[in-house]
Amino acid sequence: MTRKYTIEDIARLAGVSRGTVSRVLNQHPAVSAETREKVLEIIEKLDYRPNFSARHMRTHSSNLVGFGLITDEVITTPYAVDMISGAQETLWAMGKVMLVVNAGYATEFTAASFEALLERRVEGIIYAAMYHREVELPPQMAQVPVVLANCFAADRAFPSVVPDEAAGGYRAAKNLLEKGHKRIAFINLGTPPVGSPPIPAATGRLEGFKRALAEYDVLFDEELIRYTDQTPQTNYRLTHELMQLKSPPTAIFCGNDRTAMGCYGALSSLRLRIPDDVAVLGFDNQRDIADSLWPPLTTIQLPHYEMGKWAVEYLMSTKDFSTESVQHMVDCPLIERESV
Amino acid sequence: MTRKYTIEDIARLAGVSRGTVSRVLNQHPAVSAETREKVLEIIEKLDYRPNFSARHMRTHSSNLVGFGLITDEVITTPYAVDMISGAQETLWAMGKVMLVVNAGYATEFTAASFEALLERRVEGIIYAAMYHREVELPPQMAQVPVVLANCFAADRAFPSVVPDEAAGGYRAAKNLLEKGHKRIAFINLGTPPVGSPPIPAATGRLEGFKRALAEYDVLFDEELIRYTDQTPQTNYRLTHELMQLKSPPTAIFCGNDRTAMGCYGALSSLRLRIPDDVAVLGFDNQRDIADSLWPPLTTIQLPHYEMGKWAVEYLMSTKDFSTESVQHMVDCPLIERESV
Repeated sequence: MTRKYTIEDIARLAGVSRGTVSRVLNQHPAVSAETREKVLEIIEKLDYRPNFSARHMRTHSSNLVGFGLITDEVITTPYAVDMISGAQETLWAMGKVMLVVNAGYATEFTAASFEALLERRVEGIIYAAMYHREVELPPQMAQVPVVLANCFAADRAFPSVVPDEAAGGYRAAKNLLEKGHKRIAFINLGTPPVGSPPIPAATGRLEGFKRALAEYDVLFDEELIRYTDQTPQTNYRLTHELMQLKSPPTAIFCGNDRTAMGCYGALSSLRLRIPDDVAVLGFDNQRDIADSLWPPLTTIQLPHYEMGKWAVEYLMSTKDFSTESVQHMVDCPLIERESV
Repeated sequence: MTRKYTIEDIARLAGVSRGTVSRVLNQHPAVSAETREKVLEIIEKLDYRPNFSARHMRTHSSNLVGFGLITDEVITTPYAVDMISGAQETLWAMGKVMLVVNAGYATEFTAASFEALLERRVEGIIYAAMYHREVELPPQMAQVPVVLANCFAADRAFPSVVPDEAAGGYRAAKNLLEKGHKRIAFINLGTPPVGSPPIPAATGRLEGFKRALAEYDVLFDEELIRYTDQTPQTNYRLTHELMQLKSPPTAIFCGNDRTAMGCYGALSSLRLRIPDDVAVLGFDNQRDIADSLWPPLTTIQLPHYEMGKWAVEYLMSTKDFSTESVQHMVDCPLIERESV
């Protein structure tokens, strides 16, 4: 929509050669101050945009080299936005701007989105996934330093940062055990479609849950483990099923905070009080949910903010990416509120 | 961190002049196919990045001109992410890539964030605000076509798209009145700090609410209007206060879905059933909340997705931005679930 000018236009209007314009654009020293100023004036007037604007060539600001963040759908879903905050605030503290592109899931736009950032001179790229999973990145990603956040490559080709799911599951169960609960239900996140690899969140948290029970000499009871497809209806129904057991649970550990919402509704319909009759513990510490429920939800923090922060810090402090294949695990702390 | 090559490096390695490299970069026809191929090979090998990569110059793709979206904090908060989806999906349908920058609120990075997009050849920019409000944009925004989404400039200097708050408030009250409710409470969004202009959401919805009552010959009762600072504690307390009135409400219209969460908790603590004892109606249709509560929340849709979509469509279809000062209002439809 804006008319695009060429180097030729600028050369003509400034009365210089294309080479001179090019030298000015490349900050070449062999240009007189007068000519340089004249060319920059034309460039500003025409609003010609090379990689960097005339204005910034004058001030020699390097902020605008920028930093890229690519997401599958992190910026179009409410769930993991804290990862964006963590990266953004860390970069701001370094005086750097962050460009974000949402690439979706392996559509025709995924590769184009990666390219769009690579074309625009970024110092490094973070690829952030909405949920903890294995990812496959297009080959051109090898051209620039990349860190994966909340995901990992099967061949560990890129450094990555992920949540310590097992530590989170362990911590959840331990908190309930410490409060004296022995009948602890776990509404875990449902398994993915047949043929897909298991979700690290589901397997990791169950492993940690079992470890805590064993430490407290509480027998693991398969009857208390349920899997949700994450619809409110299922979360409501599973809670009812659990409370109808001959020996119902005194505490319910929910695979995420949204599951806890259905659980709250079901317990309310049974006129059971939280935490007096049944304790409820969530996972994620999802903003606008965990702290807005009543009673406020005790939960495990998914360290989204910390993962975004770590990814930026690692990228900016690491010189050689050719031999790196580190996978950093971030702890999942307990956030105590009033539901346990 | 990646070594940066200059045009000189490429010219030297390809055994041609700087001018020839420049002509290849500018897709000038006066270059032999053989020379062109040789230069492009070197460019790819060195991973030299002009405005567009060698790869894309070959395919003549114009996708990478791209489109910019600047937010105050939309991508770092869960609340209005659907605005990003609306813009993103509309652009994808047009075969275009979207670059997003989070500019924060008038910090030293706000202007730099705007610049970062302007420097990177975007066809147009959407500025999207987290909540419906008046905004002031830096002067360099006049350089490129801009549409404001979920916000507006005081002088209407830019075209904008905002929710029709009054229509939403009207629709909420009308739905409750149609179901026979006459004692309808409204927990409205609290007023901003002294000296700030009123929030359009609060004033608009109250206006629509009053209009519906008048249509149904129901007297407006100031006692049933409360203002929340949007903390769960306040939402819980205000609901208790309302239910302790001599003539308590039979329905509560909540200024947003998070307010409804505190309201649900308070009604549960009073052993009151939703909707049998008290109907609850929200606002926003916030993802992960309205549909995850139990019972699922009847609410008014804030048209975030539609605003993102409209902004893109307007930008792409409008030729002359110099005389435009349209403000488009998008309706806020009722989303019926089970709480009314």
